[in-house]
Amino acid sequence: MKIADEILNQLKFGDNGLITAIAQDYQTNEILMLAFMNLEALEKTAETKKAHYYSRSRNKQWLKGETSGHIQIVHEMYIDCDADAVHMKVEQLGGGACHTGYRSCFYRTMDGNIVGEKVFNPEDVY
Amino acid sequence: MKIADEILNQLKFGDNGLITAIAQDYQTNEILMLAFMNLEALEKTAETKKAHYYSRSRNKQWLKGETSGHIQIVHEMYIDCDADAVHMKVEQLGGGACHTGYRSCFYRTMDGNIVGEKVFNPEDVY
Repeated sequence: MKIADEILNQLKFGDNGLITAIAQDYQTNEILMLAFMNLEALEKTAETKKAHYYSRSRNKQWLKGETSGHIQIVHEMYIDCDADAVHMKVEQLGGGACHTGYRSCFYRTMDGNIVGEKVFNPEDVY
Repeated sequence: MKIADEILNQLKFGDNGLITAIAQDYQTNEILMLAFMNLEALEKTAETKKAHYYSRSRNKQWLKGETSGHIQIVHEMYIDCDADAVHMKVEQLGGGACHTGYRSCFYRTMDGNIVGEKVFNPEDVY
C-alpha cells in the first residue's frame, strides 16, 4: 500500500509526534478502536498491511496483535481533510480488538451500560 | 443524554485538556470526522444532543454547524476502554460533515485518490 508523496508532505503530527488512527471493521463498518501512530508506525502499516501503532504508555511502536495474535489486516487507508487523522478499514483477526476481550473498545455507552460483545477471555491471550 | 458519574470520574483528557471524538453516521456507519472535545463540549453535547467540539486552532468550544447549519444530532454516545476517546453516532444535517464540502473528512485514500462524495459547495455555506 502506498502513501502518496503529497500526503506524506501534508501529514500533521501532534507535538508528541503522533497522529490519531481509527480502525473500523472493513465489512460491518463497526468502529473497533482508536489509537496513535508515529510516522514509522504509519509507514510500517502501509508497507505490511498490518496495523502498527505507537504506545504512549510504553513509549514504543507496536504491531497490534503481536502478543494476542489479534492482528488487524488493513484493507483500506484514508487520511482526513487536514491530514491529522488516519482511518483504516481492517479485518480483525481473533474477533476482538479490545484488550478487555470486547470486539470493540467502545463497548460502553456514556450512561455506563455495557453494550459490546465479549468475544474472548483476555486471560487466555495475554 | 446522561454521562454516568463513574464514566465522568474515569475520563482521561490529554495534557491539552482535550479528548478525541469520532462522529459516525448513525444509519450507514460511515465515519464522518474526528475532532476534539474539552469537558465542557462533552457535557454540552450530552445535554443538547448536538455535537460540540473544541477547536485547537481557534482555542474555543464550538457547536458543529453553528455557521454552516450542518448540525450533528447525536443519537448514541460511547466511551472507550481507557476512557480517552468518545464515539458518537450522529445524524448529519445538511448532508456533509467536512468543511471542504465532502460528506466525510476522510475523502482521500493514502495513495492520494479522492474517493469521497462532494455534497455541498463550501462557498455557499461559510
